[in-house]
Amino acid sequence: MRRDKDVQNSRPFERFKLSRVGVRSVKKPVVVKRPRGKVVTLNAEIELFVDLPSDKKGAHLSRNVEVAGEILDESVRSPVPGLEDLCAKISKEMLKRHAYATMSEVRMKADYFLEREHAGKRSLEHYKLLARAVAERDEGTVRKMIGVEVTGMTACPCAMEVVRDRLVARHPKQRGMLMATPALTHNQRNVSSLQIEVPEECNVEADDLIEIIEDSVSSPTYEILKRGAEGELVYRAHQKPRFVEDVVRNILSRVLRKYRNLPDSVLVTVVSESEESIHKHNAVAERTTTLGELRR
Amino acid sequence: MRRDKDVQNSRPFERFKLSRVGVRSVKKPVVVKRPRGKVVTLNAEIELFVDLPSDKKGAHLSRNVEVAGEILDESVRSPVPGLEDLCAKISKEMLKRHAYATMSEVRMKADYFLEREHAGKRSLEHYKLLARAVAERDEGTVRKMIGVEVTGMTACPCAMEVVRDRLVARHPKQRGMLMATPALTHNQRNVSSLQIEVPEECNVEADDLIEIIEDSVSSPTYEILKRGAEGELVYRAHQKPRFVEDVVRNILSRVLRKYRNLPDSVLVTVVSESEESIHKHNAVAERTTTLGELRR
Amino acid sequence: MRRDKDVQNSRPFERFKLSRVGVRSVKKPVVVKRPRGKVVTLNAEIELFVDLPSDKKGAHLSRNVEVAGEILDESVRSPVPGLEDLCAKISKEMLKRHAYATMSEVRMKADYFLEREHAGKRSLEHYKLLARAVAERDEGTVRKMIGVEVTGMTACPCAMEVVRDRLVARHPKQRGMLMATPALTHNQRNVSSLQIEVPEECNVEADDLIEIIEDSVSSPTYEILKRGAEGELVYRAHQKPRFVEDVVRNILSRVLRKYRNLPDSVLVTVVSESEESIHKHNAVAERTTTLGELRR
Amino acid sequence: MRRDKDVQNSRPFERFKLSRVGVRSVKKPVVVKRPRGKVVTLNAEIELFVDLPSDKKGAHLSRNVEVAGEILDESVRSPVPGLEDLCAKISKEMLKRHAYATMSEVRMKADYFLEREHAGKRSLEHYKLLARAVAERDEGTVRKMIGVEVTGMTACPCAMEVVRDRLVARHPKQRGMLMATPALTHNQRNVSSLQIEVPEECNVEADDLIEIIEDSVSSPTYEILKRGAEGELVYRAHQKPRFVEDVVRNILSRVLRKYRNLPDSVLVTVVSESEESIHKHNAVAERTTTLGELRR
Repeated sequence: MRRDKDVQNSRPFERFKLSRVGVRSVKKPVVVKRPRGKVVTLNAEIELFVDLPSDKKGAHLSRNVEVAGEILDESVRSPVPGLEDLCAKISKEMLKRHAYATMSEVRMKADYFLEREHAGKRSLEHYKLLARAVAERDEGTVRKMIGVEVTGMTACPCAMEVVRDRLVARHPKQRGMLMATPALTHNQRNVSSLQIEVPEECNVEADDLIEIIEDSVSSPTYEILKRGAEGELVYRAHQKPRFVEDVVRNILSRVLRKYRNLPDSVLVTVVSESEESIHKHNAVAERTTTLGELRR
Repeated sequence: MRRDKDVQNSRPFERFKLSRVGVRSVKKPVVVKRPRGKVVTLNAEIELFVDLPSDKKGAHLSRNVEVAGEILDESVRSPVPGLEDLCAKISKEMLKRHAYATMSEVRMKADYFLEREHAGKRSLEHYKLLARAVAERDEGTVRKMIGVEVTGMTACPCAMEVVRDRLVARHPKQRGMLMATPALTHNQRNVSSLQIEVPEECNVEADDLIEIIEDSVSSPTYEILKRGAEGELVYRAHQKPRFVEDVVRNILSRVLRKYRNLPDSVLVTVVSESEESIHKHNAVAERTTTLGELRR
Repeated sequence: MRRDKDVQNSRPFERFKLSRVGVRSVKKPVVVKRPRGKVVTLNAEIELFVDLPSDKKGAHLSRNVEVAGEILDESVRSPVPGLEDLCAKISKEMLKRHAYATMSEVRMKADYFLEREHAGKRSLEHYKLLARAVAERDEGTVRKMIGVEVTGMTACPCAMEVVRDRLVARHPKQRGMLMATPALTHNQRNVSSLQIEVPEECNVEADDLIEIIEDSVSSPTYEILKRGAEGELVYRAHQKPRFVEDVVRNILSRVLRKYRNLPDSVLVTVVSESEESIHKHNAVAERTTTLGELRR
Repeated sequence: MRRDKDVQNSRPFERFKLSRVGVRSVKKPVVVKRPRGKVVTLNAEIELFVDLPSDKKGAHLSRNVEVAGEILDESVRSPVPGLEDLCAKISKEMLKRHAYATMSEVRMKADYFLEREHAGKRSLEHYKLLARAVAERDEGTVRKMIGVEVTGMTACPCAMEVVRDRLVARHPKQRGMLMATPALTHNQRNVSSLQIEVPEECNVEADDLIEIIEDSVSSPTYEILKRGAEGELVYRAHQKPRFVEDVVRNILSRVLRKYRNLPDSVLVTVVSESEESIHKHNAVAERTTTLGELRR
């Protein structure tokens, strides 16, 4: 890293404080202890920031990478359960090493795999983990965020009704069957994320967040689907058509039920983006809120 | 650009010739004269290369960017019809300025828009243009490639049959109607490309290549679809289900019929990639061949 | 777009309002009238959002793309000066068409070129324009943001001092010359952005923002540099070494001086990221603030 | 995966064979046994292809993902040394399961880390591994490729001479010192790759390829550099200025010396790309050749 003594500590010519100074695109292997005692290695992409007062020319950025290295090394010997716990540890140590900073922020992103069984076939499915921690010196608090990104499938409820109306008009005698079975519609790859920010002492399990999203889309996706299983999955997805708006709301609803014990101050961010198969652009829905607001 | 006289012309310590030396990620606005006299400005991303003999330490890379700038400036006053014609002009001029090179290569890529009408609504649809020219000093030839990338939709023929079988089994009396109407299946965003490499004097129109691809997928996509038009498009796409293999073969078939007058030596490359809605991965089919081989 | 009547207007099962619903990755050519009357075509990537009340199942997303298309078509006939003005127009029209929405948001991003002269050579240099507008129904206000992203060069002040000390220690008699000339250091590609959000009636010129950034890095970059000009540029960049922290502060200082007439409420966001040549990661500095806070 | 019995085996309407049909962007954790017995988990991105005869409508793509899954599962129990060995195993098994295919191809790409020590500081440095295997049914052969991508630093030799000339002209009495010490120049992040394709029975160690590239650039890069070490590294990099052309040739030279025992038929591909700090574009040099040709 760049700088250690003289130059950084000198007074800057233009005396503005800075919101965040740090490093981005640091890549490191990270060891975490997942549910049921399984220890896994993740390849994390890391960002490390502190704020900088107006009378200091530069932050000692090499310290950020050093702290991350030390705590990640230690985690090989005694793994913590989540990326967000590592972020929290690193953010606290960064405040110690940057005496001039009032806050520190650490972000991580990593590929993640869970074994799923579908129609008798097991496969390792791919997800993304997101984590962040922010430590505030004055409040003495650390807030940590745990998030996941999940690739699923959405089938459009609107086009399905239009197609059904058309079929009913053409085949009026089959009305009963047509109303009782899902009609064809456009469906597509959907990427949804759910992030929950909690006080340091609270715990949220990433695997639960993945399950919440997979239950909220028209269907989860699988790497291996034999012929019959594929037909079954497609049929079921059409029995549960969803706008991106529906996906976000359904996730919010499940979050409310799942985390009854978390405090009102907990932040929830949900984004659902469908790579529309009938357009060249994507449809997106988002909600950022607190558990308190959702409970009202 | 980096270097002009002494250092580049010095003898390198390790005397290997180099296949290609040049610049990448040069961005420039480019003016071309499209069919029906329409002059359009494209933002091209450009690559410019020459080969380098074993006794020359460096290529004079600033000349590449200079030549490109001069010819693109000239094209504002007298526009040429295609990106590939610009690539050809620049590649020839590059051979003049790099006396030591035996070949030069120029590539361009640009966003491109065509007005489309669908169900009474007009919209500007987005495509990508690809172009390349390679000039060979000894043969005195220039070959130019013109290509397009198109976002469309594919509906899976296999899952459709499985779903139909299931419906027929459950509703045997409606067998007639079920066999006569498309069943639901998974469908998704598909990106297909078609590239044709011809001798300099031949001409291939990019708009025709776009049309060939849009006719070969289950359905083109549109930025604006009102309710009824959307249902209609989805229904029609399901009347024409396609694997990526089908898309590539259908494109090849249309190329054969369209370009009867082009010589056997013409190179054709077709790639079709579907962002599978039921998987987290993509399905891909490719064919690289010559018109001569296709005609056999 | 997906949906027009029935399904969207139905009541959702789970009654949560949504922060933003819309489309992303819409690509359109856009015409703007730049300083000195020059009309240029930009290829914009567009995002269009509204909020959604809790009692409405879906937003009518096709309207977003329609409104954008209509206003961009109109801009071909009577061009407005900036992307942000187009965003403002579209955001206001979106509130009219989505009667249930309390706010709308439009974002655009586009490649942009300016002619620069350096050492007697003219070249078209590449930049990015960023724009956004947010319309609020209750306040009746529109705020618009105009921003730029500029690729420049930074030379590290800290390594330069270390190298200089080392040379002085080894060549004590040349101390005078060594202290008077810049020493070698690591330098690298830097990408900095400056975004300014103003009330609708205020105007900020993107070309000025580009100039502010180019004056604040160690050196602007150029597509064509002949041998002598390249040496000169490199030497001058080393006479003005800069941390990313320095770049951000220098930009803030120039913004303060340039925009004395803008109100205190104006938002300013500056980010500077150096693709460190001695590390595999990047160094980043940021400041988000208001003009009022900077003036204190 | 999509299809298993009927539809794929049916005759296609348009009878063209296809060069490659398969899947892309499959992500899987992969276990390999590195030098000195260390077992590491890599997150691989995988592509799996076969060719398809003209009389078969579709390839059974689910088999590709199944084969990959089985062989990767097995590798957890008995790890093989390299990604390329996994590719070779999978490609051979794919030929067994796709009786109609004449060739199969498997590609993998993964983040990779090696512990490096620099100036007394240890850090895990980030690299990319590239691997491929192609199995040909008729020849009964498998060729495998092993490659690496390394981020290093290049300092320009040309600008250095211009700056030195200028300093000598201005300080003629210091000519001796100025000629004996490196002058300042532009330097930047460089990404170089080296790929070697060998017959199945030959072995090439990825760690050796990384070392070859790090020895060939102006300097390797490190995640942690304290003040003194940073100055030292920068100074040394300037003692070894390199064009991208020099980097490629130096790599070729080291490959020749290192792999005296490999046969003439071995394919070597070297690419070096510098993210020029004085331009917005990149400089690139490439060589694709055989060991036999290099030995001549």
